[in-house]
Amino acid sequence: MKFFNVISICDARKLLAENFPYSRGASETVPIESAYGRICAEDTACGEDIPAFTRSTVDGYAVTSMDTHGASESVPAMLYVKGTIAMGETPGFSLISGEAARISTGGMLPQGSDSVVMVENTETFSEQDLMVYHPVRQNENTIIKGDDIKNGEIIVHEGEEISHGHIGALASAGISTIAVRKKTSFSIISTGDEIVSIDSSPSTGQVRDINSHCLASMIRSIGGHVNSSRLLKDNLTDIKTELESAVINSDIVILSGGSSVGSRDFTVEAINSLSGEGVLTHGISIKPGKPTIIGESNGKAIFGLPGHPVASMIVFRVLVEYLFNHLNGTDRSHDHISAVSGTNIHSDPGKTTFQPVILKTLPNGETVAEPVYGKSGMISTILRAQGFIEIGSETEGINRGDHIKVYRL
Amino acid sequence: MKFFNVISICDARKLLAENFPYSRGASETVPIESAYGRICAEDTACGEDIPAFTRSTVDGYAVTSMDTHGASESVPAMLYVKGTIAMGETPGFSLISGEAARISTGGMLPQGSDSVVMVENTETFSEQDLMVYHPVRQNENTIIKGDDIKNGEIIVHEGEEISHGHIGALASAGISTIAVRKKTSFSIISTGDEIVSIDSSPSTGQVRDINSHCLASMIRSIGGHVNSSRLLKDNLTDIKTELESAVINSDIVILSGGSSVGSRDFTVEAINSLSGEGVLTHGISIKPGKPTIIGESNGKAIFGLPGHPVASMIVFRVLVEYLFNHLNGTDRSHDHISAVSGTNIHSDPGKTTFQPVILKTLPNGETVAEPVYGKSGMISTILRAQGFIEIGSETEGINRGDHIKVYRL
Repeated sequence: MKFFNVISICDARKLLAENFPYSRGASETVPIESAYGRICAEDTACGEDIPAFTRSTVDGYAVTSMDTHGASESVPAMLYVKGTIAMGETPGFSLISGEAARISTGGMLPQGSDSVVMVENTETFSEQDLMVYHPVRQNENTIIKGDDIKNGEIIVHEGEEISHGHIGALASAGISTIAVRKKTSFSIISTGDEIVSIDSSPSTGQVRDINSHCLASMIRSIGGHVNSSRLLKDNLTDIKTELESAVINSDIVILSGGSSVGSRDFTVEAINSLSGEGVLTHGISIKPGKPTIIGESNGKAIFGLPGHPVASMIVFRVLVEYLFNHLNGTDRSHDHISAVSGTNIHSDPGKTTFQPVILKTLPNGETVAEPVYGKSGMISTILRAQGFIEIGSETEGINRGDHIKVYRL
Repeated sequence: MKFFNVISICDARKLLAENFPYSRGASETVPIESAYGRICAEDTACGEDIPAFTRSTVDGYAVTSMDTHGASESVPAMLYVKGTIAMGETPGFSLISGEAARISTGGMLPQGSDSVVMVENTETFSEQDLMVYHPVRQNENTIIKGDDIKNGEIIVHEGEEISHGHIGALASAGISTIAVRKKTSFSIISTGDEIVSIDSSPSTGQVRDINSHCLASMIRSIGGHVNSSRLLKDNLTDIKTELESAVINSDIVILSGGSSVGSRDFTVEAINSLSGEGVLTHGISIKPGKPTIIGESNGKAIFGLPGHPVASMIVFRVLVEYLFNHLNGTDRSHDHISAVSGTNIHSDPGKTTFQPVILKTLPNGETVAEPVYGKSGMISTILRAQGFIEIGSETEGINRGDHIKVYRL
């Protein structure tokens, strides 16, 4: 058995960023309705002024604001109602001082008017006679042409994750499809003499393959694509063959190691046998997840993740997802949950500790995180935990009441 | 023009819960890898003990814990190494006091052993001679049979949203498919004389259909299915015909009203012309979103959402999604973001105010929400805002530093 030099989580991320530089990947065009959560591949600009004409934001009367100055309950402004603005049409008439026009929310202001009086602030005594009880300022209750989005303004920037709001703004600009990054593709290779497929009945001593299912689910939920998922015994030749095709066909390769020492040794040997840099680091000063391996071949990253399901999920979030975001030129730091620690949590200085937590929302809206302790390797920990926190290597723990950033599980 | 009696947001939710009672809907079976985010349709139990045998959680030596009592750097325990435990197999030998066996993480403990000494706490002087420098307690560095998940224990409860952790636990139990609720189906009917499809070139006075695209995207992201999406002019007969088929084919119907008064009147008339309760409420004391309509026909909920895109998205989150969760018997309150208010935010008492906000994460991990102000009806507001907050009808606003719950946009 050999011990390895471990690097910090910071250095592991630097290593990933340096060895796998961001280069605008391939893109594809999708309808905006399927674009939610995808990463925008190029700055997408509005090709016209939104709105294209000055609109009313209320139901009421289009007027010349000057005519309403000084209007009040006791001294209303008296106006002549010239007609009604039809929805979806250019008004067939214009107004002069002393005139008003019935208008609905979204209607186009007629020429000569510069504001809209809300219907609640008016009264009519006949079809034509309007009393206005409140003054309006110029442009009040209107959105003027280009006020919302200007012609040429970027709606979605390259690298942004597309939101429902983006989709609405794209629709308003008549943009029905958008260029998004092609999904980053992953190959998963599970190895281990003791691991059998979930459809098998394990003999005593064997366990079912958990990690490839968890990992596939996590890959899909961050917007990746699972190209292939294979389960292999600890056989160097088979692992090498599978790895060789994986680094050709996928952007990121994940080896989910059998937890035995032999299995880990095979992983290192197989990665080193490929063309390229081979193993870049073997061991990261994190808990759990210390035996994590990072390698390179054919320009692709190869991760050797720990065999314990909880450790494997945590390392996926803090390193694999980091690389995913880096390769896609995107930032998803908003994906974390802010919470306060409900208790003191101890950790070992010198390594970054990831502690699964349960989240509770207090009546005042505060989110409190409480640690979930469980033996290493227990899957039940993540049945209860909704996330995990990171405790820096320079501290001895977290105090009750400290603000903490929670990664989702 | 008529004014309507408005009800509170609380009463609107009560109205939904009472008129559309939860009844276990139809379910379907999906592979666990596609189950993430779906809602579990029945309590799903583990059919065996996990693990099925007592396993080591470290690399080291299986021992009898009694043999190591009192062991230290200066006075190590001396043990005889009887052999190596092969991964994935039942050990071919058992141990007696004074004996140890090489074991890898995940290996099965041989009979006679009750704990594992980590390799870091041992030294070997020959193949057979082992020195143990640290004592271990009974069961230390092991997971005993059934310690993780017991036979019969529920892994996922009915109504729970399926997480990556659930998928891992189901895999460990050999459960490869799971019963989930069929996706709640929605029909979207956009109406308005001024509204044209996003592929059309609007004439002056016309605008493109924004809401049906935003709403379709939001429906899919909460796990619903968009059955149909139609764009109609303000024509009572057409709206009635479309509504009649929508309440037969879908679980929830959304009318995205044209913003004109006439359009809103048609919505009410069309809902009232169907069999059933018709309009249940017309007007909710919320801002924005006051003209929201809730109706019933054929046991299905019909929402008349406001025409303004921001208002429409907010009412979707606070009412349509509320009904979606209620019908599915699920709770997704954890989906909110906890933040503190970065500023004083005023609101009108007597109505519940929804204020779009931008979120910033401070270096200490705290999330701060700042209001995004924009004219009613501007889509650019939701390009900047990541969520919105709810200010209760009984308060006059929120103070800087107050804890607030942020709904996602």
